[in-house]
Formats: sequence, structure tokens, C-alpha cells
Amino acid sequence: MNVAILLFEDFETLDVFGPVEIFGRLKDKYQISFYSMLGGLVKNSHGVSILTKNIEDIKNGIDIFLIPGGHGTRKEVNNIELIDKIRTISQMSKFVLTVCTGSALLAKTGLLNGKKATSNKRAFDWVITQGENVTWIRKARWTKDDKFYTSAGVSAGMDMTLGFLSDIHGLEFARKTAFEIEYDWVENMEEDHFYKQ
Amino acid sequence: MNVAILLFEDFETLDVFGPVEIFGRLKDKYQISFYSMLGGLVKNSHGVSILTKNIEDIKNGIDIFLIPGGHGTRKEVNNIELIDKIRTISQMSKFVLTVCTGSALLAKTGLLNGKKATSNKRAFDWVITQGENVTWIRKARWTKDDKFYTSAGVSAGMDMTLGFLSDIHGLEFARKTAFEIEYDWVENMEEDHFYKQ
Repeated sequence: MNVAILLFEDFETLDVFGPVEIFGRLKDKYQISFYSMLGGLVKNSHGVSILTKNIEDIKNGIDIFLIPGGHGTRKEVNNIELIDKIRTISQMSKFVLTVCTGSALLAKTGLLNGKKATSNKRAFDWVITQGENVTWIRKARWTKDDKFYTSAGVSAGMDMTLGFLSDIHGLEFARKTAFEIEYDWVENMEEDHFYKQ
Repeated sequence: MNVAILLFEDFETLDVFGPVEIFGRLKDKYQISFYSMLGGLVKNSHGVSILTKNIEDIKNGIDIFLIPGGHGTRKEVNNIELIDKIRTISQMSKFVLTVCTGSALLAKTGLLNGKKATSNKRAFDWVITQGENVTWIRKARWTKDDKFYTSAGVSAGMDMTLGFLSDIHGLEFARKTAFEIEYDWVENMEEDHFYKQ
């Protein structure tokens, strides 16, 4: 399956590279590419500068479209061209995965209306304003509704990705992948160690 | 403090970007730069292509020198120029951190001789051949000996980096940082969930 990762200025490092580590090592099953609105190098505030392709190259959707979060989402929710592009690609894609505040961008497209979703704990009150008809779940490591997967903050993107692998290839396959990267996978999407009432 | 991350072809994604997420978000304390032998874009097999500076730019050591692992280390342990450069920079630097098989590269310099170190579980038998006078610890999430920190496989680099923060800024500071990225930090360096006798 082809995995397209959306990048924008000031994306969150681990939102992207946690899932990339997991999909990336499964070379016979997943091929990763990075995309941005203009292509070329995309930077974030952690000093990371990554080479991307132009998002126009995605003509007919993709198997897996992954949208990270980060401070950049605060600006990008108002970028109508980007939101339109996210909507179009998401509609045509087989699966859409968001990490952290990436769910704010997807919510803004309207595609999460009536669906369950979660996000970063500390940005939650802002995120929900981007999609008032979304069924926001505050206590979740990740959510799955139809073809949409959304994770809680930053590290949770790895648990969600392993959960996705479990759905596609089975629990033992996901456990083996977690073991290979010596990662303590939170297997239950409802087990949230960071939720506070 | 300035953090220099060494990159080479086919570095492991999360070995790099786990620590980068943690140091990167502490902008008032840490500044990250990426370096490679020739500078420019460095790729790995996960489709990541990242911009680096030339390692010659590090003239007088650095506060924190971080060496990741990955399949590329199998080739780079025989790259005498790189090993010499790692030795010189490590000698001049305040702290040297390795993740996963990055400890094979550091061991090859001889600087770990007589010191405790660990590495990726699945590559351990190969790694120890790169430094026969190193006190290799098989059961460890990470090790600390003098200025040298070494972690177990991939994800363990995040626990080690949080352990480093704890040593420098205190336990509560490290816990707060882990909480912000919703990461279940393994606080005890001897707690190793992936060791099998």
C-alpha cells in the first residue's frame, strides 16, 4: 500500500516519524512518500527540513493518507486551499489517519461530521471548535470510525499505527512489529493514560 | 545547549526523531542541527530525505553529540573517516548519546572501552564485536557511564533522552516533558521489557 504523508511548516516531528518508522520498516507492504502544497523542503521548529513532492502529484487518492499535527495546524486550518486539498484526497483515499492536532485539519473539511475522533489532550478545546458536528472522544488513545483513524497526542500516533496494522494484518503481526522497535504498544484504543477528568 | 545529530545513509527513522521531538520542543534549552560527512540531503530506506550541514562545521565539539543506529551502521563501522570523525567530536563534546546500533559506531572508536553500554536487542551479537573491551549490558533500557549514554533499540532512545533530561533538569521536568507528548516513559534505565534470557 502507498502511504502519503502530508507536511506543512511547523509539523510536529514525532507525529510524522513515529508512524513512518512503523510503516517504513514493512518494506514489502508499505511505500512512504512525503507531500506538501508546493513540494520541496518543508521545515519545522525542531530544525528538521524534509524533502517533499508536490501534493498535485496525488491524482486519484492514495491507500493511506496521513495528516500530522503540530503548531502549524493553527495557521493551516485557515488555509482554504490546503483544506480543500485534504478533503479531495481524503474522499478518494482508502484510509485517512490523523495524529494529534492533525484531526483539526481533517475536521475542518467536514468529513468527520457524525464520526468519532480524538486529538491532543492539551489542544482539545481548540480542536473541537474546528468541527462542531464531530463526535469528539476525550478519553482515547486512538479512534477508528469507518475509514478514519485519529490519534491522541504525539506518541499516540505510534499506537494508532500499530492498531491499524492489527486491523489489516492481525494482532500478532502488530505485536511483532512493536517488539522489533522495542516499543511498549498500548494495544487497547480506549486505554488512555493521559486523560484527566 | 547545542545538539548535533549525526546522519548517514540508511539511518533508523525513530532513532533520530524520537530524541529530536524531545529536545526540539525545549526551544529555550536545546538547539538541534543535523550533520553528515558531506552535508546536503541524507536519505534512508523509509523514504525520509533530510537536509544536513557538513560535519566539518563542528570545530570544537558540541554540547550533545547524538549518534543514531540503523542498517547503515553495518556499512559505516568500516568507514574509517567517519569513525575518526566520531572519535574526534566525541572527545571534544560534553555528552555523547547513542541510540540502538549507534553504539556500534561509538564502540568502534575505542572510546567506550572499559565503559558500560547497551544496544538493540536483535543486533546485539554483532554490535559487541565492534568493541570487545566494552562492558556490554544486555538487560537495560539505557546506560549511562561518564559522559556516554547508550540506549537499547529504536524506541528506547526516547526513554534515554528523557533520562538525560532528568539528570540535567530533574525528574519532574522529564516527567512533564513526557506528559506533554503523551509518552509512557520507562523511568528506570534497568527496566527492560524486551530482554529475554
